[in-house]
Amino acid sequence: MARNSLGRELPASFQGRPVVPYRDPWSVRPEGLRATRALKRVDPGQPKLVQNLQEAIERCGLRDGMTIATHHHLRNGDALLNHVVRMIDHMGLKDVKIASSSVHPVHAELVPLIREGVVTGLECGVNGLIGELCSKGELRCPITVRSHGGRARAVSSGQVPIDVAFLAAPACDEYGNLNGAHGPSAFGSMGYAFTDALHARHVIAVTDHLVPYPAAPASISQADVDWVVRMERLGDPGKIVSTTTRVTTDPVGLQIARYATQVIEASGYLKDGFSFQTGSGGTSLAVAENVRNLMRAQRIKGSFGCGGITGYFVDMLEEGLFQALFDVQCFDLKAVESIRRNRNHLEMSADTYANPFNAGAVVNRLDVVILGATEVDVDFNVNANTESNGLLLHNTGGHADTAAGAKLAIIVAPSMRGRLPIVRDAVTTVTTPGATVGAVVTERGIAVNDRHPELKAELLRRRAPVKDIRQLQREIEAVTGAPRPLEFGDEVVALIEYRDGTIIDAVRRVKG
Amino acid sequence: MARNSLGRELPASFQGRPVVPYRDPWSVRPEGLRATRALKRVDPGQPKLVQNLQEAIERCGLRDGMTIATHHHLRNGDALLNHVVRMIDHMGLKDVKIASSSVHPVHAELVPLIREGVVTGLECGVNGLIGELCSKGELRCPITVRSHGGRARAVSSGQVPIDVAFLAAPACDEYGNLNGAHGPSAFGSMGYAFTDALHARHVIAVTDHLVPYPAAPASISQADVDWVVRMERLGDPGKIVSTTTRVTTDPVGLQIARYATQVIEASGYLKDGFSFQTGSGGTSLAVAENVRNLMRAQRIKGSFGCGGITGYFVDMLEEGLFQALFDVQCFDLKAVESIRRNRNHLEMSADTYANPFNAGAVVNRLDVVILGATEVDVDFNVNANTESNGLLLHNTGGHADTAAGAKLAIIVAPSMRGRLPIVRDAVTTVTTPGATVGAVVTERGIAVNDRHPELKAELLRRRAPVKDIRQLQREIEAVTGAPRPLEFGDEVVALIEYRDGTIIDAVRRVKG
Repeated sequence: MARNSLGRELPASFQGRPVVPYRDPWSVRPEGLRATRALKRVDPGQPKLVQNLQEAIERCGLRDGMTIATHHHLRNGDALLNHVVRMIDHMGLKDVKIASSSVHPVHAELVPLIREGVVTGLECGVNGLIGELCSKGELRCPITVRSHGGRARAVSSGQVPIDVAFLAAPACDEYGNLNGAHGPSAFGSMGYAFTDALHARHVIAVTDHLVPYPAAPASISQADVDWVVRMERLGDPGKIVSTTTRVTTDPVGLQIARYATQVIEASGYLKDGFSFQTGSGGTSLAVAENVRNLMRAQRIKGSFGCGGITGYFVDMLEEGLFQALFDVQCFDLKAVESIRRNRNHLEMSADTYANPFNAGAVVNRLDVVILGATEVDVDFNVNANTESNGLLLHNTGGHADTAAGAKLAIIVAPSMRGRLPIVRDAVTTVTTPGATVGAVVTERGIAVNDRHPELKAELLRRRAPVKDIRQLQREIEAVTGAPRPLEFGDEVVALIEYRDGTIIDAVRRVKG
Repeated sequence: MARNSLGRELPASFQGRPVVPYRDPWSVRPEGLRATRALKRVDPGQPKLVQNLQEAIERCGLRDGMTIATHHHLRNGDALLNHVVRMIDHMGLKDVKIASSSVHPVHAELVPLIREGVVTGLECGVNGLIGELCSKGELRCPITVRSHGGRARAVSSGQVPIDVAFLAAPACDEYGNLNGAHGPSAFGSMGYAFTDALHARHVIAVTDHLVPYPAAPASISQADVDWVVRMERLGDPGKIVSTTTRVTTDPVGLQIARYATQVIEASGYLKDGFSFQTGSGGTSLAVAENVRNLMRAQRIKGSFGCGGITGYFVDMLEEGLFQALFDVQCFDLKAVESIRRNRNHLEMSADTYANPFNAGAVVNRLDVVILGATEVDVDFNVNANTESNGLLLHNTGGHADTAAGAKLAIIVAPSMRGRLPIVRDAVTTVTTPGATVGAVVTERGIAVNDRHPELKAELLRRRAPVKDIRQLQREIEAVTGAPRPLEFGDEVVALIEYRDGTIIDAVRRVKG
């Protein structure tokens, strides 16, 4: 056992790898080389289109103990990961690790295959049942949660070698050129898949829409794809939208959005060249709506919006409020339509988006990001992974990456959920360190991190409801009462890896 | 001394590297891993735009003995390579190797700097004076000539490690996103530069058109660019057109084109899905015009055109005769305009184009390629590097790559140049092995390689002027007389590296 700089107790090792404790967001400098893979040779006339998934997997030489990956652009509509793991089971393989970009509730189908030892580890975060069962000790499957940028770093640095990557290819030709913009399962940006295509030892494109050679655009090139295989349906793009994508009508959410907008105004960043990211939740979109109105009124010409892209940001692009969008993942079908036709709607790899170990990611250029939280604590640390009941239900996404990159990260959250207070002495799990958080905004007021004294002074000057975070905590607890501490067992069910590869927290089994 | 399978005498080593003799186009299977480079970290707020080229070079740590690279999309209008080498000289550096994608006559300015030892080797082919002077023994600068695909292989396999790559960036933002489509020096596809951006240890973007962040499209990503520096003018895109780009009016050229078209018709490849490449010479374009007319008349819908792209191919794309264009380099400004706006005009890296050691290059998908020659021999070997006077005046380009990849490589050439016959007992220099050549077409008839017996039979059936290549040689020599053998010294001034890294020929000093 060791403690990291945030006081979190960590195991000495996990899944056979030593645990390096988190210290701060900046001090880890990368050592070593980018991952590499074997040179290949494919001669003219050699076909790549194989009969079925089993043949493709066999040709890649997948064996017990190896690591596979998929990407989660179809989110809860994804059919590929379940299909692949069923095939792996059918082939009698065991002890396979999954290093996908994310796992969703639809992948609860894997639970029996985890119990049977077909899958024995998740090198990625999870949304939904698998995390819940692991948290309760009802399923054994060690999980390493990574941010999108952290995953790009882990794969491109060789920390997580992917033996076989399965690329969901909505439009693909028989030689492996592929894109996400066309076809019945079109989901838009291939964002997370680029890293896999460049670094996995073997790359299989799986498609439900084989187009005549060459597929255009070729977001991913034939030069990186070893095998092509057909599948009846990659999934249901109608389920890309897995959270709300409308501006909230809830008065609490609207109040939070008003305060968050005040913070943005006071920050001084809302001017020509403004860059901005929000998630797709109703409160975030309410902030976006306010920002949009301010930009219109003040004739501000922004630089870019980035991250997962909603139709809301597409509208802002088309209105001229942004010069460009950087899209790692389309959050709705309007974004898919836009990336297909608008040349300023840029497809972005997860590496370019958020990898801390390259020549400079897009998150580094963000002015303001709006992020959610299940909890925050008095040191501004944020929990976006576990709920206050201790269950691991959420993947990190770009949370820790954008907070580290942006000039100002604003956490928006209602002051309580159910009868539980949002502001804690210590969060149940640290996803994003307080050192990278600028302000916490609830409907009861705004807490500004001491690292941003000028922002605090300006908000006070504007008579915004600024409160010390402990004061905010006391006000909330006056309503909810102090939360009962959770009881955890000793077993570590998951590590929360910070974007630089150090461990910022461990998730332990919740005691019944 | 050793001989390769074509009987060419080779030195045992060159520039300190052992020489591996060429055997055949297919038997070399790659061993080892793709090249890699150090992981980096660039934090928010760290600028990449530096004051001047010297500062950028210093920050990259360029030292004596290292290797630099540029790319030749501006062809004879390029100002960057001279500018860079002048600066290297100004900084007092010596013994630098150039591994650019090509060197052009405009770079004759480097001759004094080669004499002074600032530049001591060319890891690339040359067009023009430098090759001539080296051939004559008047300049000492060992040259390794590579095809476009061979260069992509050499760089991506680590055979030629590039210490600092200088990317000519016609449109670039201060964080290194860049494209070739916009700006006063726009040259279109960034083709050759992709390999450098991915593999060079340090990457400097040099631009004469700094655009607000983010540059769109971002053909090359900020995540791969270390430094950005301004330069007054990258070059003159008006000089991209360095060869003729009009259909020839010369009766000899037109006759060759008619015969070449007959070969294409007889091949059976001219049908729906047809894929095609030609160079930009007048005879090649005359073939393209004939093919275009046939496709129109027979309502053939082709698959793709590829390589360096001319306005002629743009017209064919727009007419619907091709589904897409794969563009590694725009050959004229009409192609530049097209790549800017037509989504089926695809920007292609040299790796995707022609690297033999990836998961399958575009050349593998070619049906027919039309290629030129300075000489061919009775074994169908082709010389595209030296003239019949022995002077090394031409780079290989995609010659050897497309010949190897295409189902049918057709060599078009006049039967004599000056008083010198094109068909020889043995070519002065082998660029492309006869094993990958289908037919040689002159105005005096068509010689078909025995490897294509069905093509020969079909041409005979169609009463085309098929001749044995030795018969063709005799007919030509009846006019020109037998050519006098050239006399060479022992010194090897250049190696001709085949696309797989083996050595297909050596170029020696021309005597007196």
